Amino acid sequence: MSTAVSPLAPTSYPDMPEIEGVAFATAQAGIKYKGRTDVLLAKLAEGTTVAGVFTRSKCPSAPVDWCRSILARGTARGLMVNSGNANAFTGKKGKAAVKLSAEIASKALGCAEDEVFLASTGVIGEPLPAEKFEGVIAGLAALEQQATWLEAAKAIMTTDTYPKIATVTVELDDQSVTFNGMAKGAGMIAPDMATMLSFLFTDAAIDAKVLQALLSGETDGSFNSVTVDSDTSTSDTVLLFATGAATARGVAPVTALDDPRVPVLKAALGDLMQNLAQQVVRDGEGARKFIEVQVEGATSDASARTIAMSIANSPLVKTAAAGEDANWGRVVMAVGKAGEPADRDRLAIWFGDVRVAVDGERDPDYSEDAASAVMKKDEIVIRVELGLGEGTARVWTCDLTKEYVAINGDYRS
Amino acid sequence: MSTAVSPLAPTSYPDMPEIEGVAFATAQAGIKYKGRTDVLLAKLAEGTTVAGVFTRSKCPSAPVDWCRSILARGTARGLMVNSGNANAFTGKKGKAAVKLSAEIASKALGCAEDEVFLASTGVIGEPLPAEKFEGVIAGLAALEQQATWLEAAKAIMTTDTYPKIATVTVELDDQSVTFNGMAKGAGMIAPDMATMLSFLFTDAAIDAKVLQALLSGETDGSFNSVTVDSDTSTSDTVLLFATGAATARGVAPVTALDDPRVPVLKAALGDLMQNLAQQVVRDGEGARKFIEVQVEGATSDASARTIAMSIANSPLVKTAAAGEDANWGRVVMAVGKAGEPADRDRLAIWFGDVRVAVDGERDPDYSEDAASAVMKKDEIVIRVELGLGEGTARVWTCDLTKEYVAINGDYRS
Repeated sequence: MSTAVSPLAPTSYPDMPEIEGVAFATAQAGIKYKGRTDVLLAKLAEGTTVAGVFTRSKCPSAPVDWCRSILARGTARGLMVNSGNANAFTGKKGKAAVKLSAEIASKALGCAEDEVFLASTGVIGEPLPAEKFEGVIAGLAALEQQATWLEAAKAIMTTDTYPKIATVTVELDDQSVTFNGMAKGAGMIAPDMATMLSFLFTDAAIDAKVLQALLSGETDGSFNSVTVDSDTSTSDTVLLFATGAATARGVAPVTALDDPRVPVLKAALGDLMQNLAQQVVRDGEGARKFIEVQVEGATSDASARTIAMSIANSPLVKTAAAGEDANWGRVVMAVGKAGEPADRDRLAIWFGDVRVAVDGERDPDYSEDAASAVMKKDEIVIRVELGLGEGTARVWTCDLTKEYVAINGDYRS
Repeated sequence: MSTAVSPLAPTSYPDMPEIEGVAFATAQAGIKYKGRTDVLLAKLAEGTTVAGVFTRSKCPSAPVDWCRSILARGTARGLMVNSGNANAFTGKKGKAAVKLSAEIASKALGCAEDEVFLASTGVIGEPLPAEKFEGVIAGLAALEQQATWLEAAKAIMTTDTYPKIATVTVELDDQSVTFNGMAKGAGMIAPDMATMLSFLFTDAAIDAKVLQALLSGETDGSFNSVTVDSDTSTSDTVLLFATGAATARGVAPVTALDDPRVPVLKAALGDLMQNLAQQVVRDGEGARKFIEVQVEGATSDASARTIAMSIANSPLVKTAAAGEDANWGRVVMAVGKAGEPADRDRLAIWFGDVRVAVDGERDPDYSEDAASAVMKKDEIVIRVELGLGEGTARVWTCDLTKEYVAINGDYRS
């Protein structure tokens, strides 16, 4: 397992405002890792609403099944997350482990079992020894030793080289309303969907149906627009909790999608999710380059997105980036294989500000030096103009390095 | 560029029977490589019929456009192939280079331009200096210095570490009829379609329409069932030529698909194509393991195939193979992300003869030692039983190694 922090990691962590109605505690349950925290308990105020989006995998983990089964209720009082074991493909033992986890957490939090959301991340196929939660979670009940956002984010890491947190504050009814979030994920990252765990919290009071619409609406442009390796986890989970604590400060509850404040919330949530999604790519296993792929002029946004993902997932494009090789022919290849409308002879490609190809051939002013200079940077923008329509997309990925192979050739956790 | 021969290469080359009506010559045109042949000319007897399948890329190379445009005629007198430059994404210059190539070859062979099939492989986006063919091809006109099948296969290599040839002989009308073939390809290998160049020849007389049906019919089970890196080339071309020379020995021409001899030809061609397709995977860039993925019990063959390809293309499955790690959880992940019907709790997985998972969880008799022993072999079979229906599929891939990244991080040719 890699230990050095990704060179693409943010250089500092944001100051995270408190979100009233959310309290964290972490502990060492010893599920797999030694000498670090591996379980996170979040206590949520009464009245907290919840929304969720989950992996589209046909082989989801037991905790994903659990979250889906209790989501309709729309309210939550707790969240328990462990790292080191995904409780995925664990059959009846997996269901029993989920049941025991919910029991332990609900007893500690003083709420019903189906008010506790669960997530697990780590190795697939190993039974989760949920009984290990018993002692440590009971001890956290009082939540006297409250953990910070950073500590909470650290407890849910697996191959992550740094914890991922972000915050956005907006004005609502002349009051500050906050969205805070955390995420984990470094491999098995691809769209459909989040390919990792992310937990988002706000103190706004938002009706569960509105909350779900907001979360679902912002997923495509954030967590579904990043890819490390085109692999989709069995455990992908994004949960958004709204404690409603801001009502005490005079922020009226949001109960309908046509509320004029919804666009403000939507923008804030979108920013938060895009920030966290990009942090996941920046921690992509073995990543040394952060790559933004922009596709313009497609016949539709969906078509642009398919083409952008074809480029972002291409091993040949990603290895070229690793080798700092301005190999735009591989971008042509990836456009061509996407199966979407494209006209070879209208295609133009940029690396950064350098146009390398136009009208279906190499740019007449092509400069290998200029293109190579772009490739040497830590952050690379690849832009493709199809010249067919108005469809656009923007997705993020990282390069494919020998370290990715090394990490995944050894890693079993 | 890697120079060592793949450890998965065949240990010997087959003796290739002559195919009457086919003669090869090779030369050093100096397109890109130094000190090796880089152009192949095949002279085909009058009356030779032809069939072809090509890349589904929306950005095909100029030679692919050319072959498609002349295929309807159904007859061929020549084939010219160069390595070192793909003549792809070269705009008007690319069309001009194709025109000049056909002119030069047709003059040397004494046939019409639209009887000459062309293929190019190598770097994308560089104009092809077709004028370099002029001298060398004119000199080959007499074809006095005929090249062997092995020499022909060598002239079309790029990152290949060994030439790929195969032969199958069948009895037709009490006479031997031969199918010979060659292929090149090591990276940018994925279905849809062949992702490489392959040229197949038979001395049977087969009507062009029948020939096309035979070729198209055998493509899915061979070249479209292999993947190295999920990337699809702009230049994929498979051409099948039937010289008809066997008619002189009393083998009646095959003029209709319901001819009772068609199944014999179909089986021979299928074997030949599968052999060559597997040779391509065995030469996969950086490959150290040859992997067969078998999927059974799917709701349909098409569904089984999608799931098999999802496993075969998964970077996490392929890096686990590289690391000799029996990480069956990643197989579960790849089944789950395929988007096809799958019931987690009916899934069973084998590595070789070792069942590692059953009924949606780890096999009760799971032995890490036994599973690891399978992973240490050069050839690994991964079998998935879905338990839903009768659909089956079998595809081939290789592991993903640091060498793949090294080859493609530096390679620009």
